[in-house]
Amino acid sequence: MDVRGYIEQNAPAFFGSLKQWLAIPSISADPARHGDVRRSAQWLAGHLREAGFPVAEVWETGAGGSGLPAVFAEWPAADPAAPVVLVYGHHDVQPVEPLAEWDSPPFEPAERDGRLLARGASDDKGQVLFHALGVLSSLAASGADAPPVTLKLLIEGEEESGSPNFAALLRSRRDQLRCDVIVISDTSMWAADVPSMCTGMRGLADAQIDVRGPDQDLHSGSFGGAVPNPLHALAGLLAGLHDGDGRVTLPGFYDKVAPVSAAEREMFARLPFDEKAWLAEAGNSGAATGEAGFSTLERIWARPTAEINGMWGGHTGPGGKTIVPREAHAKLSFRLVAHQEPAEVIAALRDYVAAHTPPGLEVTVTAGGPGTRPSFSPIDSTAVRAARRAMERAFGKEVLFTREGGSGPEADLAEILGAPLVFVGVILNDDRIHAPNEKAEMALLLKGAETAAYLWDELAAVAGELAGPR
Amino acid sequence: MDVRGYIEQNAPAFFGSLKQWLAIPSISADPARHGDVRRSAQWLAGHLREAGFPVAEVWETGAGGSGLPAVFAEWPAADPAAPVVLVYGHHDVQPVEPLAEWDSPPFEPAERDGRLLARGASDDKGQVLFHALGVLSSLAASGADAPPVTLKLLIEGEEESGSPNFAALLRSRRDQLRCDVIVISDTSMWAADVPSMCTGMRGLADAQIDVRGPDQDLHSGSFGGAVPNPLHALAGLLAGLHDGDGRVTLPGFYDKVAPVSAAEREMFARLPFDEKAWLAEAGNSGAATGEAGFSTLERIWARPTAEINGMWGGHTGPGGKTIVPREAHAKLSFRLVAHQEPAEVIAALRDYVAAHTPPGLEVTVTAGGPGTRPSFSPIDSTAVRAARRAMERAFGKEVLFTREGGSGPEADLAEILGAPLVFVGVILNDDRIHAPNEKAEMALLLKGAETAAYLWDELAAVAGELAGPR
Repeated sequence: MDVRGYIEQNAPAFFGSLKQWLAIPSISADPARHGDVRRSAQWLAGHLREAGFPVAEVWETGAGGSGLPAVFAEWPAADPAAPVVLVYGHHDVQPVEPLAEWDSPPFEPAERDGRLLARGASDDKGQVLFHALGVLSSLAASGADAPPVTLKLLIEGEEESGSPNFAALLRSRRDQLRCDVIVISDTSMWAADVPSMCTGMRGLADAQIDVRGPDQDLHSGSFGGAVPNPLHALAGLLAGLHDGDGRVTLPGFYDKVAPVSAAEREMFARLPFDEKAWLAEAGNSGAATGEAGFSTLERIWARPTAEINGMWGGHTGPGGKTIVPREAHAKLSFRLVAHQEPAEVIAALRDYVAAHTPPGLEVTVTAGGPGTRPSFSPIDSTAVRAARRAMERAFGKEVLFTREGGSGPEADLAEILGAPLVFVGVILNDDRIHAPNEKAEMALLLKGAETAAYLWDELAAVAGELAGPR
Repeated sequence: MDVRGYIEQNAPAFFGSLKQWLAIPSISADPARHGDVRRSAQWLAGHLREAGFPVAEVWETGAGGSGLPAVFAEWPAADPAAPVVLVYGHHDVQPVEPLAEWDSPPFEPAERDGRLLARGASDDKGQVLFHALGVLSSLAASGADAPPVTLKLLIEGEEESGSPNFAALLRSRRDQLRCDVIVISDTSMWAADVPSMCTGMRGLADAQIDVRGPDQDLHSGSFGGAVPNPLHALAGLLAGLHDGDGRVTLPGFYDKVAPVSAAEREMFARLPFDEKAWLAEAGNSGAATGEAGFSTLERIWARPTAEINGMWGGHTGPGGKTIVPREAHAKLSFRLVAHQEPAEVIAALRDYVAAHTPPGLEVTVTAGGPGTRPSFSPIDSTAVRAARRAMERAFGKEVLFTREGGSGPEADLAEILGAPLVFVGVILNDDRIHAPNEKAEMALLLKGAETAAYLWDELAAVAGELAGPR
């Protein structure tokens, strides 16, 4: 029986299992649901054991098990020299408020017109579970007892809460997690009829700028025009963050930015992107704007940005107040692309601010946290080419490339485990992840399983090349 | 008996009367004190009648007498061709909170070391009442029955509340108020040993800028870098309000600005100004800053400014929020100098904003009100030269020139009555007007009376020239 035949035959059982899992409200952000997150981990480990994984364990996380559990499973290849592949996904889900906006209860999975409606159907339980179906279909097709690669699954339980314990888990379990390729199954495709593969996620650095001037607000009639105004200084600092071409002016900001290759730009350009509709979604009746020389998709996917997220100071109530205010504040965030480092960007912001602070004012820059590293897989890398072939076999169509603006723990995975990333996801942007009425297209989840099955073959076939570009 | 002798002899009676008047808590901002403001007007009219003013009336203000009363008094010169001088002051006072910070009750005038402590001692009852003593000393010295000029007093009762009914009063009583010179007695001198005369007050225009972008806050991961950010646009608009020389960039902003004359700049430079102490007062450890080519005193007195008074938008709470915010706001005010017009400045701001609004954003400019016109008296004008001679005779010293940063209804007086202004004030900057423990230097109030007495002579002596530069 071939892969597709096996998947078709076993689809009803697959969706039956998925519905069982989706009924567990594993909301990591809600302490009242932490028991359910643990139950979800137990369910998945049991399911993988039943599927045949020789190893399927619940891993506690955090100091003394204070975090929420991940699931680790492993199915070794018969050949000890076969590549080792680690699949990353998560079994926790987003909160469901506002409940009133759901057409059916979020944890009572419902099938409607080929769609499965439930919290987590797309993000990320559906995309995790298709790997169990995928590996079984691969075995059915090959007649072997073990997959052609050593398959490891690491399914986190705190992704929707910012993965607070994940990097520590990766470090403490590094030997067990050793791998040649990391497959991320937590991204989307362009459209049901436009299969595509994500090749990178932007990272993030954020900071607050505080400008302090006089000890108290000053009367602008007595002092205005002869002492520095913190709001003026802040406006100048913020306005100066971009040059006339929309480029960020921080010293060295672009030094480590991997250029978007001509091939990837061409792929982006081939996506059927309706810029007008996209602008309308942003409530913008004007034109798209941003860094000169790049398209809108390149700007939101492959180029770093600086955004002011908030700003305040002085009199903000009704009426006027003729003061030189004592202080001014702004919150900023930078979307980063490979291989920018959050800490270096914040340091550059500090340098920029120090160089442009008018005398008589004190300006401080405080990082919001450690930030998130960007992740990136070159489209000509061995792993991405193999994954693309697998996906094209499953979909019977050319697979294009996208990137994503957001970011999770992907960069930590690549860095700590020292392996290249490849993104295999089949959900859609309109699946309403994080919103009421989350759904998954059932046919696409099956395509995901099929892609996974082919991917193990494709990676096994290029085993010798994998060591190179990792 | 000469002027000085008369004043010395009558000083005890003068201060006795002033204390009576200061005991009336004429706080115009406090509706509970409006009866006291009326009592204060009655007291002043009675006092001026007793002093010999043939006319001394209480004038109701506002529609149907809804405002607080002013006092008008007139003492005609014997010669119908003599110049007509109108003295402006006010009999209402500032609120007294916080009461606990007063060393003695604000409406129980106390004498201490040559100082009179009470709310209104300097601002402005002391400076109004010295005119009664002044005209009597002038008559005592000349032996005449009438002053050498026709003397009119117009003493407002709503100055500390923004003079809401004053312009209408001036218009409705224009004939009765007709004059050749307006003497403002509501300003201060540089220091007790540095007599000086104010020659102008800055005006004011204020506005709010509102920038609107998307219908709602956008996820900066999905949209950041490709749609306009209202906070960026606002920062750019505000940063662009000044050029590298600290000049305001609004089109035509300086077109009507009367240049500071070389003579006035020289006078400013001769004031014993301790810039370091002034900066310390502003809580500023750095250097003074502002428009290139002007001193600190010139910047705060004789040059117009643009100040951001407040700014807000986006996320301003704790932590970070990676959004492109939907809107951004700022409050601005402009200090104006003669002959700038508030409405024209706001119109220029509108033009500037319209010319610099990025596509996809909507920006509106809303004026905060009609604004306040600046006032100004050239130091070489006949009236200022006469007043300076009078003050130099009283103080026995050269009189320097200052200006003031704030502004009252002076420009309305000059414009509606069509006469030049001259500022005759003897209070000090450390008299704590508007603050607890307001005081007046008793010796300086007597110098004010003496200055007034000489001023009527000096103005009578240049009657022929007054028509010219008015």
